Amino acid sequence: VSAAGLLARLRAAVGDAHVLRGGLVAGYDTDWTGRWQGRPVAVVRPGSTNEVREVVLACAAAGVPLVPQGGNTGLVGAAAPADGEVVLSTRRLDAVGVPDPGTGTLEAGAGATLQRVQDAARAAEFEVGVDLASRGSATVGGVVATNAGGARVLRAGTTRQQVLGLEAVLADGSIVTRMSGLPKDNVGYDLVQLLTGSEGTLAVITRVLLQVTPRPPARATALVALDGVPAAVELLITLRAGVAGLDAVEFLTADGLELVVAAGRARAPFAEPAPVLVLAEAVGLDADTLVEALAEAVASVSGVRDAAVAASDADRARLWEVREAHTEVLAPLRPVKLDVAVPVPALAAFVAELSGVAAAGGGHPVLFGHLAEGNVHVNVLGVPPERELDVTDAVLRLVAAHGGSISAEHGIGRAKREWLHLGRSAADIAAMRRVKAALDPAGLLSPGRVLPDV
Amino acid sequence: VSAAGLLARLRAAVGDAHVLRGGLVAGYDTDWTGRWQGRPVAVVRPGSTNEVREVVLACAAAGVPLVPQGGNTGLVGAAAPADGEVVLSTRRLDAVGVPDPGTGTLEAGAGATLQRVQDAARAAEFEVGVDLASRGSATVGGVVATNAGGARVLRAGTTRQQVLGLEAVLADGSIVTRMSGLPKDNVGYDLVQLLTGSEGTLAVITRVLLQVTPRPPARATALVALDGVPAAVELLITLRAGVAGLDAVEFLTADGLELVVAAGRARAPFAEPAPVLVLAEAVGLDADTLVEALAEAVASVSGVRDAAVAASDADRARLWEVREAHTEVLAPLRPVKLDVAVPVPALAAFVAELSGVAAAGGGHPVLFGHLAEGNVHVNVLGVPPERELDVTDAVLRLVAAHGGSISAEHGIGRAKREWLHLGRSAADIAAMRRVKAALDPAGLLSPGRVLPDV
Repeated sequence: VSAAGLLARLRAAVGDAHVLRGGLVAGYDTDWTGRWQGRPVAVVRPGSTNEVREVVLACAAAGVPLVPQGGNTGLVGAAAPADGEVVLSTRRLDAVGVPDPGTGTLEAGAGATLQRVQDAARAAEFEVGVDLASRGSATVGGVVATNAGGARVLRAGTTRQQVLGLEAVLADGSIVTRMSGLPKDNVGYDLVQLLTGSEGTLAVITRVLLQVTPRPPARATALVALDGVPAAVELLITLRAGVAGLDAVEFLTADGLELVVAAGRARAPFAEPAPVLVLAEAVGLDADTLVEALAEAVASVSGVRDAAVAASDADRARLWEVREAHTEVLAPLRPVKLDVAVPVPALAAFVAELSGVAAAGGGHPVLFGHLAEGNVHVNVLGVPPERELDVTDAVLRLVAAHGGSISAEHGIGRAKREWLHLGRSAADIAAMRRVKAALDPAGLLSPGRVLPDV
Repeated sequence: VSAAGLLARLRAAVGDAHVLRGGLVAGYDTDWTGRWQGRPVAVVRPGSTNEVREVVLACAAAGVPLVPQGGNTGLVGAAAPADGEVVLSTRRLDAVGVPDPGTGTLEAGAGATLQRVQDAARAAEFEVGVDLASRGSATVGGVVATNAGGARVLRAGTTRQQVLGLEAVLADGSIVTRMSGLPKDNVGYDLVQLLTGSEGTLAVITRVLLQVTPRPPARATALVALDGVPAAVELLITLRAGVAGLDAVEFLTADGLELVVAAGRARAPFAEPAPVLVLAEAVGLDADTLVEALAEAVASVSGVRDAAVAASDADRARLWEVREAHTEVLAPLRPVKLDVAVPVPALAAFVAELSGVAAAGGGHPVLFGHLAEGNVHVNVLGVPPERELDVTDAVLRLVAAHGGSISAEHGIGRAKREWLHLGRSAADIAAMRRVKAALDPAGLLSPGRVLPDV
């Protein structure tokens, strides 16, 4: 099949207006960091599951690889195209349902943003368990395809624990589906769980069914200035033991806060700078009780220098901005960005050793992330381009040496596939290859992602 | 390879004392209901993961199929052998660790009983989220292999939401493993989730890492007599909306209670019989608050005839015995047993139509189960043997007509594979076949389970 033949078939499938080429592919062809980009054959925007199927079959017939893309907010090059790929944008699959109180579920098209899905839940006094700083752009299809984590994993689990069903198109154009929302449904292998977190390499997710839970009446948030990482870990343990309804425990460091303040994104929360700040949030029936529980936990930890506790939405938003502004403030500095996790007991040692690893590469680390899961967003600033790969390698090896995960949230994509062996055994990787070959024997979907070349 | 050659290799792998034949296979060759049985070549009891690997390789070399077996408490013939299979009993893989408070995990060998794992958690003031009436015999390997449900799914989810890691031997003898317990670890396809619920057809699970959570200080239980299923559903909805920490909502009917009382397993809980009884349990900080919340919910529902609320362990155990004795009391009557679920809003209609379906087959249904998930254990008594298949078919079709699941908890095994199409689409089943072929191309592991013959 010629390129012209493929384009004709794609236009017939989705309509001329939804096959983008030339300058119209801007925004689809480059990822958010500018690090991953390619020249796609076309960007195709199907408007229904059947149109997705037609696009998949057209690409399969032409032997042209396909990469599904949602909000394009990932950081590992899973959804940004390589040269010669067709981008299948899910953004027109953006229908959002209303929560079903009988089953505790909410259905949405893969291309709906997380924000819209959260809003739909909230309008009915429900909440979605997943939350991310990129909620306004990230789509629920991408959230499921990457098994996104975020700040609320402590109480709600990662995305896979909240996906009650999905619909997806496989590489052969067949449509797998499970949208009943039954909490108990043991009927063969769990394809929903297999596809969740598969980063677009096994299927194009078209619809998802998410768990929603009643929205807690009250929230309270504490921002705490601490002596260092060991004190932050002590605070985490105290919070976990003593605060019912703990919903998030985040951290940031003095360097990152300074950048956020310098960029005008937040005011310095405390008179004196402190090495580490922890942001903790809890939910429950009553704000006063939550404020008291947080304050009591904070008071019992040594190494606390200062603290602020808030229960109103406006005050809480101000505390969160200190944390959430990090990604955008850091972006122009083009750091080496690595999303990793280590077991919480190893966190202090990992952070201490990280400075040496960064310095050896000519840079210095700015760290923030989700303390509750030992999930560190490592940003190494000032690394010369020719040493970026060495720094990446050294950081990921340090993570593995501490029994950690080379990818906590963002997945493997193109960025980390050469280090997959640091996170999984040869037997595990071989089994993954067999699953990939079984469901996508021609390598049509997102080639060059997740699994290293043989 | 001759049969003698296989036996010699198995004996070399695990020791003569752990290759059982002849009369020694009793208890391994027949399932709990007596419905599924076979003449195994041998029962092999490996004592380590490496011995499991040797057994798998020996069977593969001989071309003799292998069926993993834990406590042999399943009801669908997944773990009971067919003629000519080797039973790989996991019971010697029974090491149980201690809870790790840092990660909230507990490691156990696949052959450890759920009871022992629960006890280990409890000894450290933790709890395991999974609970089943067969806890004293069921092994955690089997619990994971079937994605067991049970009575506590409401708060804790099914088993797959609590499996943080596992180790398993694939059909080629390779050992896949993920035992780090990191809550965020997105490194390739999630083999843990793929193997969970695969009923021994994709791998032999050898170790599991389960989530444990702090044990709630208080529990309270209500047993409520009601007018019928619609009133029971109304009570469920009221409990879900009004009782924080709701942990279980079970149901049983007058017929089942009468059998339990006649068998001397429990005293009649109320002076007058009632069509439906609901057992609800909640956990929290304080027993008095829980008792009050349960009583308030019960008082606000029409159709309640009587109720008892208890908070002491002894009183609660008496209320639970009414529900948990059902399976054993029913067993000698050799009912047609089907574990199904329907969406809760469809439950009353399903139950009403079920009587007609059972009567058409010459029987009458005794129902009990997990009301919270619409999970009904259908037991049809008095069906002549020659009509059992018709009754099974009619019940499963009725389930599908109501948008339900043909297997809520026990899986598909051999019993339900011919009805798999009632629960999954042709595309889904085709994808499952490709996964099976990818990981077990020779069909070594548990052949004839889950997937129907082509």
